[in-house]
Amino acid sequence: MAQAVRHDAMRAGNLALVLGEVSARGSLTRAALAEVTGLTKTTVSKLVADLIETGLVVETGAVRGGERGRPGVEVRIRGDRVAALGLEINVDYLAVRVVDLSRSVRLRRTQAVDNRSAQPVDVIARLRDLALSAVDEAVGNGLRIVGGALAVPGPVDLGSGVVHNAPNLGWRDVPVLSLLDLGLPLHVENEANLAALGELWFGSGPTDFLYVSGEIGIGAGLVVAGSLFRGARGFAGELGHVVVAPDGPPCRCGGQGCLEQYAGQDALLRSTGQAGSVGLMTLVSRVKDQDPEAVAACRQAGWALGVALSSTVNLVDPDTIVLGGVFAPLFPWIDGIVTETLQSRLGQMRLSVPPIVVSRLGFEAAALGAAGQVIERVIADPAALFQPLQPSQPLQPLQP
Amino acid sequence: MAQAVRHDAMRAGNLALVLGEVSARGSLTRAALAEVTGLTKTTVSKLVADLIETGLVVETGAVRGGERGRPGVEVRIRGDRVAALGLEINVDYLAVRVVDLSRSVRLRRTQAVDNRSAQPVDVIARLRDLALSAVDEAVGNGLRIVGGALAVPGPVDLGSGVVHNAPNLGWRDVPVLSLLDLGLPLHVENEANLAALGELWFGSGPTDFLYVSGEIGIGAGLVVAGSLFRGARGFAGELGHVVVAPDGPPCRCGGQGCLEQYAGQDALLRSTGQAGSVGLMTLVSRVKDQDPEAVAACRQAGWALGVALSSTVNLVDPDTIVLGGVFAPLFPWIDGIVTETLQSRLGQMRLSVPPIVVSRLGFEAAALGAAGQVIERVIADPAALFQPLQPSQPLQPLQP
Repeated sequence: MAQAVRHDAMRAGNLALVLGEVSARGSLTRAALAEVTGLTKTTVSKLVADLIETGLVVETGAVRGGERGRPGVEVRIRGDRVAALGLEINVDYLAVRVVDLSRSVRLRRTQAVDNRSAQPVDVIARLRDLALSAVDEAVGNGLRIVGGALAVPGPVDLGSGVVHNAPNLGWRDVPVLSLLDLGLPLHVENEANLAALGELWFGSGPTDFLYVSGEIGIGAGLVVAGSLFRGARGFAGELGHVVVAPDGPPCRCGGQGCLEQYAGQDALLRSTGQAGSVGLMTLVSRVKDQDPEAVAACRQAGWALGVALSSTVNLVDPDTIVLGGVFAPLFPWIDGIVTETLQSRLGQMRLSVPPIVVSRLGFEAAALGAAGQVIERVIADPAALFQPLQPSQPLQPLQP
Repeated sequence: MAQAVRHDAMRAGNLALVLGEVSARGSLTRAALAEVTGLTKTTVSKLVADLIETGLVVETGAVRGGERGRPGVEVRIRGDRVAALGLEINVDYLAVRVVDLSRSVRLRRTQAVDNRSAQPVDVIARLRDLALSAVDEAVGNGLRIVGGALAVPGPVDLGSGVVHNAPNLGWRDVPVLSLLDLGLPLHVENEANLAALGELWFGSGPTDFLYVSGEIGIGAGLVVAGSLFRGARGFAGELGHVVVAPDGPPCRCGGQGCLEQYAGQDALLRSTGQAGSVGLMTLVSRVKDQDPEAVAACRQAGWALGVALSSTVNLVDPDTIVLGGVFAPLFPWIDGIVTETLQSRLGQMRLSVPPIVVSRLGFEAAALGAAGQVIERVIADPAALFQPLQPSQPLQPLQP
């Protein structure tokens, strides 16, 4: 029995080793796989056959005389079978993405909606409808959805999946995962963390950066050497509540003068007399027309962002700062003042201040990062998908 | 040749494996060492013999019939042979510590001196004298000093060992290591980082914490799972320049309203009409006597520290906050207001705020952490000490 357990664990480890190499290198022959993993060719062939059967990899290239494993035949990730669901609840929209194992986006659904004026159960029910219809369509296209992840704008207890407090949604202690109940393994995480991972996996960025998520709230995800820095309790990156002025306007977090009160989407729009996502589009077009009020609002937000980021750079010293969310379309009008503020506050202490770059994913980052995280887990532990599924038996949940 | 290189690398790895287990577990028999390392008893015996010869470990316990390796004979770290030098240049003192391989402090030298009014070369020359006299005494006691580390109050380029800017010392681009030149492998690092490591290795703290170093300047070292978080360029932890008020008093860093201007030692003493380290002692005795001005100065500093720490907790989410340096003797008078400020600014977002505890090492933390870092490197790579030393040949520098 103990031996069987050990054998299973070894096989699971070897499956992950082989799939990890295939994922990292794009494609390679069985012989090359044996070389890089240190496994025998026979073992590699058996593992590859299992991975093929589960739909995780496929063999491509010329197969002479019908024989497998000949030179020229390469193993690569199969994109048209296994896929993951990325979900996001934000203040003024819901988003669903289906991403396949080769990290191609297969399906996009976004719904603009004011989630602040709705009850959590209703918001979650609406997301559930959106997600189920996406899953149906994906399944219709031959995809097998193996799990999903949900991004929410606030700190999350990763263990229980409870959102304790998302002040911008007005949520307190919402058991979001049990309410969502899609019949799939699901986990939930902070929006800015997942957006940072989205930027890492789907953007064109570096592997060390601070991702700034400008929404109604402002969050940040710190990626260090390709991994997310979560802090001791998973609550790191609450950039929106870094103090800009200690006696500034009261914040929904209970503090005062937090960055969010100066540079969050609501604060930005309030100072130009706009509201909502329509307001954001209006602000972007006004600022493009050099409207002085809109330009001034961007400068004010950019200055506050620069103050909070100078504290951040002093504390965590990121290599690069990536601005996403609402700061992406406004980037040309805030980039200069942010850099200027960092320069004036940090320039004498350092040879250079971190470059400020714009996110290429915009509002899509968090939902993509959510799906990408599920894909990462499949590649890290493909054996979890090998359990024979009885019709009534749910998939084994992936470990968080 | 390649085989010989590989053999040397394997032996170096095995020496580190054995010494690491001995260091982590206190003491254990050769048989137990073979068990925990997975090496054969013969290999373990050979490695232990080498480690004994280099003075790194010693065998203790009953030896029956003069035979070695019998039950009851345990291998442990030898404390009276190999030692490291911990050095610190701070604004108003110089410190030297000699710490042996068992992490006992063998020698302490501290000199109160105003380093701001002296040229860098003169400060370094004075530290050199202090260090050489300590090394002489240690060598006289049979210790072999294998390397040293220097703590300085400012960001350091770890590669070159150049202190680019220590604003509180008034230093710019000082090549401190080449000036110090003790004929020993040396490296230099930021004072708060080394103090955090001192707290980790010599204090009684947890393995996840933010160490706050209150000196003339204020630095911080973030320890995550027993390792220092340095940031992309090694400049993380500059807590003293986190913004308390964006339009506050100008700071020597070029910024405005930095924490240092509210809670650094100078700021604290200025508000009570004191100066220097005598001033600090006076402040402590005045605050003990409930002098209202002194109590108010501590409250003001504690409030500012609470504001900067609330930004810090939002960003990096430490498990615990350890207050050291000047904040250690003043702890009873600032602890309450710091916790209160954190509570009022963070309490709604989190179930609890990180506990604030006092450093047990006070001003000694950085010099101890410096010596401890050298000890860690010896344990991680004992083979580096095995090169045969010619009288004229300096020790191989330890890799930073």
